[in-house]
Amino acid sequence: MPKEDKLQSLRHSAEHILTQAMLRLFPGIKMAMGPAIENGFYFDFDPGSHKVSEEDFPKIEAEMQKIIDADLSFTREEISFDKARELFENNPYKQEWLDEIRQKGDEPTVYWTGSASSPQAGKISQTQTCSTCPFSCPARPEPACGEPARGEPVQPIEPACPELAEGVEGTCPEPVEGICGEPVEPFVDLCTGPHVNSTGEIKAFKLLSVAGAYWRGDEKNKMLTRIYGTAFPSQKELAEYLKLQEEAKKRDHRVLGKQLGLYGIYPEIGAGLPVWLPNGYRIRRTLEDYMLKLERSYGYEHILTPHIGKDTLFATSGHLDFYKDSMYAPVEIDDEVYYLKPMNCPMGIIVYNSQPHSYRELPLKLGEFGTVYRYEKSGVLSGLARVRGFTQNDAHIICTPDQLMDQFLEVFEMLQKFYQDLGFANYTYRLGLGDPKKEKFKFCGTSKDWQHAESTIKKALDQAGVEYYEEMGEAAFYGPKLDVQALDPLGREESVSTIQIDFNLPGKFGMTYIDDHGEKQQPFVIHRALIGSFERFFAFLIEFYAGNFPVWLSPLQVKIIPISEEQNDYAREIKNKLQDEDIRVEINSRNETMQAKIRDAQNQKVPYMLVVGKKEQESGTVNVRLRTEKKVGEITVNKFLERIKSTIEAKSLDL
Amino acid sequence: MPKEDKLQSLRHSAEHILTQAMLRLFPGIKMAMGPAIENGFYFDFDPGSHKVSEEDFPKIEAEMQKIIDADLSFTREEISFDKARELFENNPYKQEWLDEIRQKGDEPTVYWTGSASSPQAGKISQTQTCSTCPFSCPARPEPACGEPARGEPVQPIEPACPELAEGVEGTCPEPVEGICGEPVEPFVDLCTGPHVNSTGEIKAFKLLSVAGAYWRGDEKNKMLTRIYGTAFPSQKELAEYLKLQEEAKKRDHRVLGKQLGLYGIYPEIGAGLPVWLPNGYRIRRTLEDYMLKLERSYGYEHILTPHIGKDTLFATSGHLDFYKDSMYAPVEIDDEVYYLKPMNCPMGIIVYNSQPHSYRELPLKLGEFGTVYRYEKSGVLSGLARVRGFTQNDAHIICTPDQLMDQFLEVFEMLQKFYQDLGFANYTYRLGLGDPKKEKFKFCGTSKDWQHAESTIKKALDQAGVEYYEEMGEAAFYGPKLDVQALDPLGREESVSTIQIDFNLPGKFGMTYIDDHGEKQQPFVIHRALIGSFERFFAFLIEFYAGNFPVWLSPLQVKIIPISEEQNDYAREIKNKLQDEDIRVEINSRNETMQAKIRDAQNQKVPYMLVVGKKEQESGTVNVRLRTEKKVGEITVNKFLERIKSTIEAKSLDL
Repeated sequence: MPKEDKLQSLRHSAEHILTQAMLRLFPGIKMAMGPAIENGFYFDFDPGSHKVSEEDFPKIEAEMQKIIDADLSFTREEISFDKARELFENNPYKQEWLDEIRQKGDEPTVYWTGSASSPQAGKISQTQTCSTCPFSCPARPEPACGEPARGEPVQPIEPACPELAEGVEGTCPEPVEGICGEPVEPFVDLCTGPHVNSTGEIKAFKLLSVAGAYWRGDEKNKMLTRIYGTAFPSQKELAEYLKLQEEAKKRDHRVLGKQLGLYGIYPEIGAGLPVWLPNGYRIRRTLEDYMLKLERSYGYEHILTPHIGKDTLFATSGHLDFYKDSMYAPVEIDDEVYYLKPMNCPMGIIVYNSQPHSYRELPLKLGEFGTVYRYEKSGVLSGLARVRGFTQNDAHIICTPDQLMDQFLEVFEMLQKFYQDLGFANYTYRLGLGDPKKEKFKFCGTSKDWQHAESTIKKALDQAGVEYYEEMGEAAFYGPKLDVQALDPLGREESVSTIQIDFNLPGKFGMTYIDDHGEKQQPFVIHRALIGSFERFFAFLIEFYAGNFPVWLSPLQVKIIPISEEQNDYAREIKNKLQDEDIRVEINSRNETMQAKIRDAQNQKVPYMLVVGKKEQESGTVNVRLRTEKKVGEITVNKFLERIKSTIEAKSLDL
Repeated sequence: MPKEDKLQSLRHSAEHILTQAMLRLFPGIKMAMGPAIENGFYFDFDPGSHKVSEEDFPKIEAEMQKIIDADLSFTREEISFDKARELFENNPYKQEWLDEIRQKGDEPTVYWTGSASSPQAGKISQTQTCSTCPFSCPARPEPACGEPARGEPVQPIEPACPELAEGVEGTCPEPVEGICGEPVEPFVDLCTGPHVNSTGEIKAFKLLSVAGAYWRGDEKNKMLTRIYGTAFPSQKELAEYLKLQEEAKKRDHRVLGKQLGLYGIYPEIGAGLPVWLPNGYRIRRTLEDYMLKLERSYGYEHILTPHIGKDTLFATSGHLDFYKDSMYAPVEIDDEVYYLKPMNCPMGIIVYNSQPHSYRELPLKLGEFGTVYRYEKSGVLSGLARVRGFTQNDAHIICTPDQLMDQFLEVFEMLQKFYQDLGFANYTYRLGLGDPKKEKFKFCGTSKDWQHAESTIKKALDQAGVEYYEEMGEAAFYGPKLDVQALDPLGREESVSTIQIDFNLPGKFGMTYIDDHGEKQQPFVIHRALIGSFERFFAFLIEFYAGNFPVWLSPLQVKIIPISEEQNDYAREIKNKLQDEDIRVEINSRNETMQAKIRDAQNQKVPYMLVVGKKEQESGTVNVRLRTEKKVGEITVNKFLERIKSTIEAKSLDL
């Protein structure tokens, strides 16, 4: 079994153990469903009269640990519908699953945890630990379960888990009362598996959170309770995961987005439709300006197209054939039908086609900050990372076949400059190739075109000296594509940029240019987005920098903190001086202590704080503190100005 | 009769004369309809087998002049449906009008031009001129109509109209053949009038153009032919009008928009949905940057909201009650209903409401370059001036009642700075007040609010020392508003900016702030758009400057013209130097003559041409020519750089 599948089985098994533990602790609940998911598992149940909260986790985890310690076996059984209906007779959710299985023409299968036929596994073994510390740290002195008399409460174990104290936030939970040696009833659930062999294989698990969830994700259904948890093959892996989660939580763009006033998503406006708030808009505008300047220096021209377009446009482009599921319902205007555009390409191509072109004009590079709208299910929407409307730093390079190589090299050059300016050290190229055996790559482009394009990209990648990995069959249906994945400091990958060759649109729209023999030719089109989505990219950036944006991107670059009212004029003088140099600066002249003002600026992650008191005023200086808590000390205003200007100019990550 | 109505009667009468003339010349046509419109009139007819073009205008105008010279009377007659049906028995269009009149419960009326009962007016008078010069210039020697024998062709008249030669383009049309003294049949049309007393009152008219037009504007109907014309009470007024039209044509933003690559509207994308092309986008971006900087210097913050929003949002705001006709059909997403936003306000207010506010934060100024979509009939769409999607330089100022005055003064200050920077010398303020007697001003705001707001605006206007005129009852239903109309060099007015007070949204959305006593209060909201629509404003700007944008706005500021290939390196050196200073510069190194390159740059209205030959290269100079054809001569590159930088900095209209 591949490692990933093994982990899935482990987590799915942990979820069964959770369900079993819950039924032991809260007999009134009704189990509904519970799969393994990326990074863990969850369990949905109808709580009945119980109110289950995260405060119950120690108790539940202790109960799970008992079941694990009992090392009960997992056994698959194929059963009849009648027997299944009887087994889950009081559970309407399972009955509904059974209806569905029947509709699909499948047969029900169940998995048993423990079994009435092997009673020796049905109770907690004398040699197992029955402690409730969910971590079973190897460093913990192993208590013999036999110590307390049978049926007596288990005593708390000392000392507290040392690994916890070191790597993971929180303390080892207080062991709760448990009865050593008590019998464990076998547990059964409707399930197709697979599972591990026995509960004892779960070496590390943890419950994470409680949430509400509609039965089968449909808000017309009953709201159930969901418990999220995770499980790993070892304590070490769990501890690493939890540490990463803790770090990721601190960087969570949804939390920082709110704290720093970067963006907002409001139910009154709509799910997946973010608003760029003032601080976020400053960063977006700075990025746009950066990109305009970079692209113009490479000869790009920019256009701006509308957000709706005629159905015939998207019929010609093929979007209504191949992309309709991602498009919203149409709007009729005066008997014409319009769609919110899901991509900018068709409009850019209409602009190209609006006049004849000579080979002398090629390559023609037409860029756009184009906002597109694409359908996403409400369940997958998440902050800025998954939205329904977003803006691309888009461009189409229209060129001759001979120019393809140079154009790719040029895009690499821009991309590397861009990443370097942002401080991205690690990124990987993933080349999606067409699979000539697959039908879907036969719609567009001749095999000669595909070969030319793919070998050109590979040559360009080799010439640029960048490493990449190939994925056969992962091209777009309209041509090969190269995605660039950036890694954040936690090692998480994000697809930031994409470069694609399009064999579809040139033909569909009859694009041409006149070659040097006066003949009409069909050009190559490269789609290229250095920022595939400003929204998603911003989510990545926030987490990449943990909100500590480099100075050139910081919404507010300087906070001036006068110690008393008497320095307000001096503060304004400095502010004007900085503002004249386009530095983004504010004064905090509120009636608060200096410490409170510094704390406030630090929470806002303002890179520089200039504290000015009587002494600084008299000597024309400022006392510089950094958001890193480092104190630079007293320097002249001019010296500070020099420092910040060169930091901005260099796009330095250091302050 | 007011002057405007009198002009309408005159033009409507001229249209009847046109119809009569057409029927005399082309007996097979069927008249359909013909109203007076702003600046003239038109006549729609079914041409049958005739093909009428602008080449026929001299002939038609001559025929019209005959009818005018005959001084036929206009007479109104109320007739029965039966008689009307008989009068127009072979005309399906008139029969359709009659159906409609009957459906409305009205009675038909007709207007006669000339009458069988007064035969003396039925033919061309012996004392009238029967020349066909449509201008009847007073300076022209008056020929006696009696000169040619009855029934003989009229001779051409010499000399040609001198007024024409002076003020109006074109020459006096060749007189066509006419028969002096021939009888004119009386003419009748279904019409409610009013008309002038007799055809002789039309002292000046001219046919302007031919177009196609669907019967009743519906593309499912037959395509008819439409002739546009105009008429004035005097030759002088006509000549002035035509001169203005000629000048306006040279400035037409639709023509310049194409010539200069500023914007495009493509049937493939959709009517009224402009694309900003590279040169236009540069100007737009420059204007946006200007506005961001100006607004930030006044403490504005900027957001960016999505283009679609939930129906409940627009239900709360009242748009679905009061503005639905301007909104497009909704889009359903997962059982929720979304609309393309017609205004940005509701989303801005959701952002305000997303956190509590203290009086200390007010005034809060929230700006946005917000793109809105509003329904316009396809027939009224025109270039960038009337579109279906446009972007506003929008802002909402949320303030206390006491801050209203200062906020108005501040907006005036910004507005004046903005207009001054653009070189707008003439603009007028139009204050739309609520009429307490009218029902529609009672929905929002107390009468105390209205009084406070209106007197504050007036006080602010007085204090700012600007002139304005009041229009009672011209407020928005939600509050008083002040529109600013700029005048272009041809004296044409355009509404550029608007400042409105809103008594609707604060209540509808329950906006509050905490005052200095800790009490919740409802704030005032000022809507303010210095640029009501970037698209419409750009149309105005193009015509205002006649495409000769001031240097700071010019898409391309400098064209370098090397005399021969040998100067290409020197040209590149200059280009890099200018580009380093953010000057927008290109080299024309095509294999063309210097004259052709200069002409090309002049057509593109590039402000500066730098011609560089061997001499300039050797002395490190450039030979500067302006788009005005003025030659500045040879100066050093540094001197030129100084000049252009200070011109940009000053936003000067001079080069």
